[in-house]
Amino acid sequence: MDNQLSLFYGLSVLTAALAFAFAAYLYLWVKKQKTVNATIQEVAALIKQGANTFMRREYKVLAKFAIVAAVIIFVLLPSPIWQGGILDNVSMAVAYLAGTVLSAIAGKIGIMVATLSNARSAEAAQKGIKPAFLVGFRGGAVMGLLVVGCSLLGVAAVLMVTGNASILLGFSFGASSLALFAKAGGGIFTKTADISADLTGKVELGIPEDDPRNPAVIADNVGDNVGDVAGMGADLFDSNVAAMASALVIAQSLSGGAYSNISMVFCYAILGLLASIIGIATARIGKHGNPTRALNSSTYVTTGVFLVLTAIATAVFEGFSWRIWGASAVGLLVGVIIGITTDYFTDDTKPIVRKVAHASGTGPAFTILSGISYGFISALPAMIGIAVSALVAYKICDPMGEGYAIFGISMAAVGMLSIVGMIISNDAYGPIVDNARGLAEMGGLGEETIRTADELDSAGNTVKAVTKGFSIGAAGLTVISLLGAFMSEANDALAAAGKALITGFDIMSPNVFFGILIGAAIPAVFSAMLILGVDKNAQRMVAEIHRQFNTIAGLREGKPGVKPDYDKCIDIATGGALKELIPAGLMSIIFTVVVGLIGGPLAIGGFLLGNIVSGLLIALFMSNSGGLWDNSKKYIESGEEGGKGSSAHKAAVIGDTVGDPFKDTAGPSINTQITVVSLVASLLSSLFVAFSLFG
Amino acid sequence: MDNQLSLFYGLSVLTAALAFAFAAYLYLWVKKQKTVNATIQEVAALIKQGANTFMRREYKVLAKFAIVAAVIIFVLLPSPIWQGGILDNVSMAVAYLAGTVLSAIAGKIGIMVATLSNARSAEAAQKGIKPAFLVGFRGGAVMGLLVVGCSLLGVAAVLMVTGNASILLGFSFGASSLALFAKAGGGIFTKTADISADLTGKVELGIPEDDPRNPAVIADNVGDNVGDVAGMGADLFDSNVAAMASALVIAQSLSGGAYSNISMVFCYAILGLLASIIGIATARIGKHGNPTRALNSSTYVTTGVFLVLTAIATAVFEGFSWRIWGASAVGLLVGVIIGITTDYFTDDTKPIVRKVAHASGTGPAFTILSGISYGFISALPAMIGIAVSALVAYKICDPMGEGYAIFGISMAAVGMLSIVGMIISNDAYGPIVDNARGLAEMGGLGEETIRTADELDSAGNTVKAVTKGFSIGAAGLTVISLLGAFMSEANDALAAAGKALITGFDIMSPNVFFGILIGAAIPAVFSAMLILGVDKNAQRMVAEIHRQFNTIAGLREGKPGVKPDYDKCIDIATGGALKELIPAGLMSIIFTVVVGLIGGPLAIGGFLLGNIVSGLLIALFMSNSGGLWDNSKKYIESGEEGGKGSSAHKAAVIGDTVGDPFKDTAGPSINTQITVVSLVASLLSSLFVAFSLFG
Repeated sequence: MDNQLSLFYGLSVLTAALAFAFAAYLYLWVKKQKTVNATIQEVAALIKQGANTFMRREYKVLAKFAIVAAVIIFVLLPSPIWQGGILDNVSMAVAYLAGTVLSAIAGKIGIMVATLSNARSAEAAQKGIKPAFLVGFRGGAVMGLLVVGCSLLGVAAVLMVTGNASILLGFSFGASSLALFAKAGGGIFTKTADISADLTGKVELGIPEDDPRNPAVIADNVGDNVGDVAGMGADLFDSNVAAMASALVIAQSLSGGAYSNISMVFCYAILGLLASIIGIATARIGKHGNPTRALNSSTYVTTGVFLVLTAIATAVFEGFSWRIWGASAVGLLVGVIIGITTDYFTDDTKPIVRKVAHASGTGPAFTILSGISYGFISALPAMIGIAVSALVAYKICDPMGEGYAIFGISMAAVGMLSIVGMIISNDAYGPIVDNARGLAEMGGLGEETIRTADELDSAGNTVKAVTKGFSIGAAGLTVISLLGAFMSEANDALAAAGKALITGFDIMSPNVFFGILIGAAIPAVFSAMLILGVDKNAQRMVAEIHRQFNTIAGLREGKPGVKPDYDKCIDIATGGALKELIPAGLMSIIFTVVVGLIGGPLAIGGFLLGNIVSGLLIALFMSNSGGLWDNSKKYIESGEEGGKGSSAHKAAVIGDTVGDPFKDTAGPSINTQITVVSLVASLLSSLFVAFSLFG
Repeated sequence: MDNQLSLFYGLSVLTAALAFAFAAYLYLWVKKQKTVNATIQEVAALIKQGANTFMRREYKVLAKFAIVAAVIIFVLLPSPIWQGGILDNVSMAVAYLAGTVLSAIAGKIGIMVATLSNARSAEAAQKGIKPAFLVGFRGGAVMGLLVVGCSLLGVAAVLMVTGNASILLGFSFGASSLALFAKAGGGIFTKTADISADLTGKVELGIPEDDPRNPAVIADNVGDNVGDVAGMGADLFDSNVAAMASALVIAQSLSGGAYSNISMVFCYAILGLLASIIGIATARIGKHGNPTRALNSSTYVTTGVFLVLTAIATAVFEGFSWRIWGASAVGLLVGVIIGITTDYFTDDTKPIVRKVAHASGTGPAFTILSGISYGFISALPAMIGIAVSALVAYKICDPMGEGYAIFGISMAAVGMLSIVGMIISNDAYGPIVDNARGLAEMGGLGEETIRTADELDSAGNTVKAVTKGFSIGAAGLTVISLLGAFMSEANDALAAAGKALITGFDIMSPNVFFGILIGAAIPAVFSAMLILGVDKNAQRMVAEIHRQFNTIAGLREGKPGVKPDYDKCIDIATGGALKELIPAGLMSIIFTVVVGLIGGPLAIGGFLLGNIVSGLLIALFMSNSGGLWDNSKKYIESGEEGGKGSSAHKAAVIGDTVGDPFKDTAGPSINTQITVVSLVASLLSSLFVAFSLFG
């Protein structure tokens, strides 16, 4: 290790500590805000308790899974324990567990702060948009800071201790395992509750959203937190770690100047975190300001600060290359462009959402057909963006020598994810103010306050589309570099076995092609299984709600003192989410193993590619269709196309219900599915080298 | 040319002549059947006239397009005219025109027979299921025989005259151009009319399907013919020609024994046509027989006969290889398996359709969500089937020497398409008996007859799913061999330019990856554009129907002698179809050219792969979702889940409306889009070699 690298290890730890300190400050600031309304306090306590119940049960299942996985990793990886090198196996298993634990801690604290902020934001909304915005935003920022701080700290610690970047794949796989449970499980939970609450409350009984008589209402609010705060946080923790891990694996394999490349990865991650801290600290809104603009401008501040700081660092530090800076800048800029185009398809001030709202006037079939069509079209600019950034990053860095081109692509992913602290803050803001809106309604804070809360909520929805585009784009670039990481792992195994090395994955090779076709079908099947899981789970919950309305006397009429059994609904959502998620996760892993055992490493290369390409397409399609249906419904509810209660509105509600599991369950879980499969493939590369039918 | 090849050229012409003679016999047989009902005669004449109007206008637009394309081809292909070799350019342009003309003739005659058979089948249904089935089936068989006869004759003639297999790509491109117009244009036409008729008739006015008061009713019946008879025929003509052309291009490039390989392609095509003739001639149904079983058993007879005949030929002829026979047998068997699994997802006696019907009870959102989910899942077995057949065909033929592996894959495609005559017969049977059902209703032939017609119609729907799976699978295999054809064309151009040859398309190459990502988005955008086209067009037609009901006195009440203006609706459907189709086709072609000019031949290789993979996925998803929604609706209408008029039925109708453009417009047009893009890429390979930004 050289001095420069030691410096950046030290700075990584310091910056992470700074992020934790700032998070602690924001936490105490939020905690200091007052709540006085007894109903709000009571409901907020129920939401908090519900979220904790889900997290506890999720973590319990996950712990079992993680222990089994850690044992398998210990026995088999990086190479079977009977071949010696036991220390590496211990490191790998410990790194894996550290990945799950760090992500779990970030999720746990994030949920704690989010469920603290919602009530405070609701009551602050009585004083105006400014204080309510700040509570929501700062509450969300705690999650953002924790996620990025933990990922930087974890990656730096693993590499400092082991000195072996391959061990980072274990850490990254830990993060992915947790993300799979948090994102897909949380996604099933939240949509089960949301759909069941809507179907029984709004549709059957005609009672308003967030009516406390509805047994699913607390589960619905819990769902926002576990799906969007914990789930999205774990997802981006996973992407961020995977991007850094793959960049570091490649950096370590580069001949000559490897240390400065490793330093550069850490330096950029540190500066990204600093830029996010600056962006969060300077987020401001006027007294009657526009919250969407406030959120977006903090994102742009962060982006600008990052580009300037990294340029300075590149000029100052020895061995840092402008080409690599260029690659990461391209990644970040393309991320911003993807965000803006996503916004075009999902923002209700733009034409697409209005066209779908208009089509709803002709009936629900047209809501669905136009939403699906525009969702498909919306994938094109993002796919082009990812394609162009990969091509440009490659071409910029290729002249630096062998291996640098792929390193450039991985640094484009690191660049795109550099502002992830800001992204998560914006994202976690959404469910906090969504909850705040519900609490304001349940606490009877009056129309003015609800309107303020509504405005904050709507900003959360719009910004969410942008952050989703970002995270999908980053996942796309990351997995390209994971493909590079897989090839380097497979070649290590091939070299050890004395076999010919892989020089690439030619699509004319039947094994590669075989892998591609099957890999492409997996994200489709995975998302279908999650959607069907929501469907089944919602049917169970609807039955339970019917049971409560039929057996609890006075509940339907809202007799004072009569309360539904909220816990039972939370229980169903929790149990069902974990039950439905596991087959989908296993299916992806089993297909990876089977394809590898049939076609060997070449088939796996193809499998990963097919998986990435169709995964990106389906994730973009589902996230954007879902977002545009949601906003079309809101647009009609604002009085357009006949307004609430019109036939267009009814059609739009159907579109929104279809879009719910698209955008909050399946779409964003595909990211995690892709990462999990890529890491399983890399980790098992020696198995596929040792045995395959046609390999 | 050797003696063996001369023999097969001769036999090709003879077999095509036999197919034409048999088609003529069937035509005369159908024509001999009587119609006596005046209403039926009148409506049938209107349908015939409407179909002819559409075909005439379509062919007119196509003729302009084809002439422009032929001039471009003449100037630029296979190499620019100023580089000499003018004879090849003339051949290519003429072959292109021959491809469009032969396909157009087959479509024209097919429509003529189909619109002759519908009325006769309707009246035959009074006498029972047996005579009505025979009229429908034999009417459809004329189309099947013509398509296969024309494609065999055309391919043999082009190769006999020019001796240059590359010229076949021009012929194939002609067939594709026509297929794009016929399939996508016909698909937009048929669904515009179908949806508009349902929305205004069934939903708004509550009048039955096929009620003569509805101005769209004739357009709806015309749509069945132009979409399913002419469109599907042109699509399979295209696939069949493309499969033969790519097999022949590869066969000609094989070193040693090339003639016997070329002979083998023709021999197998000839035997496939003979097997189809035998299957058609032996199709039988008992007096109270099951038409689905009759259709399926003819397919199995054809399959068996083909396998036996090709085995005999392989044993008898010199230079024919058992390995190649194995590859084509694998292709055919996998096709049958894909058909059977498709049937599992779309047949209402199987669990999936029933689950979707049951989910409809909870509301339309669940109809849509479950249909989309099962549609995605249904793609998996077919993708696995194609992947396995490609892998197995490759591995079987690889030991024969360089280039044989890809030849094996192309022969698997030829094998899968060998029974295409039978497939088209089954497919064209569908719209004939669908029309017959409508005519029986309009002609007042009584309940018994309508029930018979219904049974025939339902068999058509079930069998259609099987044939669609077949045609998508075949397209998948064909384009793999087109990828091989593209590489060989690009290498010819590279060799001529003195540049390094392409040895494959490595997904780690940034150009290839760039192409893959963009290529994967194209089928999504293409199908979205077609669906939005149907949407827009249907809105125009609905407005016209409203205008007629509001301005034609007595129409709504059904006053005797008052007739709607059917022609106006046919006009709208026709004009809109052509207007909406062209941007989608151009978009695909422009992206191919732009990607090639940016990334060169490597990017195009990736582009084709991305296009194939996501195209297969989306086509399978859309065709199967659409089929299962249609059959779920029919299942509920048969009295299950509350039957007609229940809330489940209303939800299922919405699902069916969404599924209509999925299964009859977008899904099956993707095949053609893929083929067109592949051929454009092959034809322009020298352009991309000469100039590209990053190539």
